[in-house]
Amino acid sequence: MLFVTRKFHFSASHRLFKPGLSNEENERIYGKCSNPSGHGHNYTLEVTVAGEKDPEIGNVIDLKKLKDLVETDLIEIVDHKNLNVDVGFMADVIPTTENMVLHFWDQIENKINNKRRKLYSMKLSETENNLVEYRGKNK
Amino acid sequence: MLFVTRKFHFSASHRLFKPGLSNEENERIYGKCSNPSGHGHNYTLEVTVAGEKDPEIGNVIDLKKLKDLVETDLIEIVDHKNLNVDVGFMADVIPTTENMVLHFWDQIENKINNKRRKLYSMKLSETENNLVEYRGKNK
Amino acid sequence: MLFVTRKFHFSASHRLFKPGLSNEENERIYGKCSNPSGHGHNYTLEVTVAGEKDPEIGNVIDLKKLKDLVETDLIEIVDHKNLNVDVGFMADVIPTTENMVLHFWDQIENKINNKRRKLYSMKLSETENNLVEYRGKNK
Amino acid sequence: MLFVTRKFHFSASHRLFKPGLSNEENERIYGKCSNPSGHGHNYTLEVTVAGEKDPEIGNVIDLKKLKDLVETDLIEIVDHKNLNVDVGFMADVIPTTENMVLHFWDQIENKINNKRRKLYSMKLSETENNLVEYRGKNK
Amino acid sequence: MLFVTRKFHFSASHRLFKPGLSNEENERIYGKCSNPSGHGHNYTLEVTVAGEKDPEIGNVIDLKKLKDLVETDLIEIVDHKNLNVDVGFMADVIPTTENMVLHFWDQIENKINNKRRKLYSMKLSETENNLVEYRGKNK
Amino acid sequence: MLFVTRKFHFSASHRLFKPGLSNEENERIYGKCSNPSGHGHNYTLEVTVAGEKDPEIGNVIDLKKLKDLVETDLIEIVDHKNLNVDVGFMADVIPTTENMVLHFWDQIENKINNKRRKLYSMKLSETENNLVEYRGKNK
Repeated sequence: MLFVTRKFHFSASHRLFKPGLSNEENERIYGKCSNPSGHGHNYTLEVTVAGEKDPEIGNVIDLKKLKDLVETDLIEIVDHKNLNVDVGFMADVIPTTENMVLHFWDQIENKINNKRRKLYSMKLSETENNLVEYRGKNK
Repeated sequence: MLFVTRKFHFSASHRLFKPGLSNEENERIYGKCSNPSGHGHNYTLEVTVAGEKDPEIGNVIDLKKLKDLVETDLIEIVDHKNLNVDVGFMADVIPTTENMVLHFWDQIENKINNKRRKLYSMKLSETENNLVEYRGKNK
Repeated sequence: MLFVTRKFHFSASHRLFKPGLSNEENERIYGKCSNPSGHGHNYTLEVTVAGEKDPEIGNVIDLKKLKDLVETDLIEIVDHKNLNVDVGFMADVIPTTENMVLHFWDQIENKINNKRRKLYSMKLSETENNLVEYRGKNK
Repeated sequence: MLFVTRKFHFSASHRLFKPGLSNEENERIYGKCSNPSGHGHNYTLEVTVAGEKDPEIGNVIDLKKLKDLVETDLIEIVDHKNLNVDVGFMADVIPTTENMVLHFWDQIENKINNKRRKLYSMKLSETENNLVEYRGKNK
Repeated sequence: MLFVTRKFHFSASHRLFKPGLSNEENERIYGKCSNPSGHGHNYTLEVTVAGEKDPEIGNVIDLKKLKDLVETDLIEIVDHKNLNVDVGFMADVIPTTENMVLHFWDQIENKINNKRRKLYSMKLSETENNLVEYRGKNK
Repeated sequence: MLFVTRKFHFSASHRLFKPGLSNEENERIYGKCSNPSGHGHNYTLEVTVAGEKDPEIGNVIDLKKLKDLVETDLIEIVDHKNLNVDVGFMADVIPTTENMVLHFWDQIENKINNKRRKLYSMKLSETENNLVEYRGKNK
C-alpha cells in the first residue's frame, strides 16, 4: 500500500453565519468570521489516494490525471468564488472548513476510487495555521 | 543604516471591477478576479523600516512597538473584511494589490518616521506567487 | 470523524544533559545540544483534535477557543523561557523533544477532551528538519 | 509510542520510461516526465521512526545518528546523481516516486529497526505539490 | 514607481562542466555538480517588473499576461528539460545559475518593457538555500 | 553585476538586557526578550555577494567555497551557543538582531571581498516574521 498526495490551491471568500440568527448572535458564535460582507482565504487542499502500484507503469495514480480530475470537478468550481453564493454543492451549508472538506470529498470520491486505489484523506487549510482532515465514513 | 522588516498576515475578500463598466467588460479586464460576488485571499504584508540603531538600546525600532502600531492602524482595519465595502480608506479605490499597498503606506508612514528612521518599503502578497512592493514617492 | 489541527509557535532555550554525568559524558550523549550555557529554538507545535462536528455550528472545536486554551495553558508558560529553569512542569525532566511533547500533552488533554472530541495528536518541531509526534497512551 | 521524523534533501535527475516502448508510447504514459534527455528535481525525504523513549537518555533515536545513517546509506548514493544511470539499487527500476520510496525503504529499514524502535514511514516529494508515502509491508 | 513580482517553478536537469577539460578537472572546479550523467533541480524564478500604475485599471502589468508571457517564452522551453541538451538559447553555455539568469533575461526583456514599465530583476534559485539575482546591464 | 545569495541556519540562545539596569528596567525596554534565564531561536542568515561572473568558470563565487567560509568563520562559532556567554566577538554587545548582523559582517567581509566581488548584504532573521538587513557602511 502506498499513499499518494497532491496539493491544490484556490482563493475564495465566505461568511460564517447561521440563517435565522441575528448578526450579533452569529458574531458571538463565529467571531470575526461572521463579518456580514464576508472575508476570504487562500485555501490549500491536499488529496491523498491509497492503493497498490500498477505493476506495468510503476505508479498508484497518474499525477497529471489526478490533477486534472480534482481541478475540473472541484477546484474550478470553488476558485475565485464566494462560497456562500456561487457554489451549487455548498448551497444551504455553513462554509466552515469542516463542512467544506465533507462536501469536497463527495465531489471526487467516486471518480478516484477503483479496484486498485481509494480516496484516503483530504486535508483543507484556511490559513497556514489551521487544517481540517477527513478520511471518509469509516475512520 | 539598517533595514528592519516585520511580516503581517490578514484575510480579506475583494472584487476587482471598474464602476460604470458591465460585468462582461470587467471580466475582460480583470478575469476571474471580477467575479461579481467576490473572492478572497490570505494577504501577507512586509513592512521595512530603515534607520540608525539607537546606541543605548541597540535596535532601530522596537519590534513590539512596530507590531502594535501596524496592527492597530492597518491590520485590524482590513483583517476579516471585504475590501470593497468595509474599509474606509479604500472607498472608491479598485482594490488591486498596487492600490492597496499605496493606501496602506499612507496609513502608517507618519507614525513610523522620525529623525532616526523612515518607512522604507512595503511588500504586499495576495498569494505566495505574487507580490507588489512600494518604496515611497521618490523611488 | 474529523481531525482539526492548529499550529503554534514559541521560542525557548534549553540544554540537554543528564544530572550526575560530567560535561564530557553529556557531550558524548547529546552532542552540541549539551552546550553548558544552553542554546535555543523557534519551536512549532501542532495540536490535532479528533471528533464529530457540532451539527448546529458546523465545527469540531471553535478554533479561537482552541487557540486561547493552548496559548494560556501551554504556550505562555514556555514562550521566551529557559526550559531547564523557568517551566514548572518540566522540572527534573531532560528537555528532549520527546519529553517535551509528553509533558505538553498532559497540560492540555483534559481541557480539550469531551464527549464529542478528543486530543488526537501533538507534533513538536525544534527545527524545520525534525519533529516528534505523540498520539496518547494507546497508540 | 512516539514518532520521530527527520527531513532530508537531495537533487537528482531522472527519466520515466518503460524499456521496450517507443518514445511516443512513453510520452503517452509518462507525459513530459519521459523527456529523452531527462529532467530533475530537488527531492525531499521524510523518515519516521516509531518507538519507545530510552528511559535513560530521553529520546527514541539520536537524531545525529539517524541523520548520519540515512545520509551515508541513502542520500549520498542518490544526491547529485542520475537515478536511471548512477544508482545501483535502482538499476532496472522505473524511477517513479512510488518505486523510489519502496527501494529507499529497503536501503535503511534494517539499520534502524531494533527492539525498541522501527522504521514507520517514508515520505518522498518530487516537488512541493506532490508526495508518496510508504509505511512498510503490513500497512 | 511600483515593483510587481511573480514567481515561477520549473524542473530541469543539468551538468556543470567546461568542454575541453577532463572529468577530473571539471570535478575539481564544479564538485558534485559535474557528475557526468547529470543531476537536477526544482528551480524557482522570480520576475520583477518596475513601473507606474495604469491609472484606469489600477495595476502595473496584468499578472495573467505576465504569467502567460513568461510561461510561453521561457518556462515551457526549460521545464522538464535537460539544460545542456534541450534548450536552444543555452547551447554552448555552462548552465550555472549565473549564466541561466543572464540568458533568461534576454528571452523576456523586450516583451515586458514599454513606456510605462521595465523588467527590473530576475531571481533564480536552484535550491531553497541559494539564489542568483540579475538587475540588467546598468546595475 | 550579479547578486549571489546563500542561506544559513543556526540555533542559539540569548537574553536582551543592558548591564547596570535592573531586571524591571530591562523588561520595560526589551519585554519578554529580557527573561533573566534567556530564551532562544532558530536564526536564518542570508549572505549576498555582488560581483562579476568569472568568464572561465561562469560563476561569481563558488557556492561550496562561500558555504565553507561562512560556516567556518561564523556559523560554527554561534550555532548551539549562548550568544551572551559563548561568543568572543559578541562579548559586551547586547545581542539584538541589529547588533548581531553588524558584528557578523565584520567576521566575514574581508574573506569574501576581492577585485571581482564584494559582500553586498546580510539578512538575519530571529523568527519567520522578522528580519534585519545590513548592506555595509556606505548604504
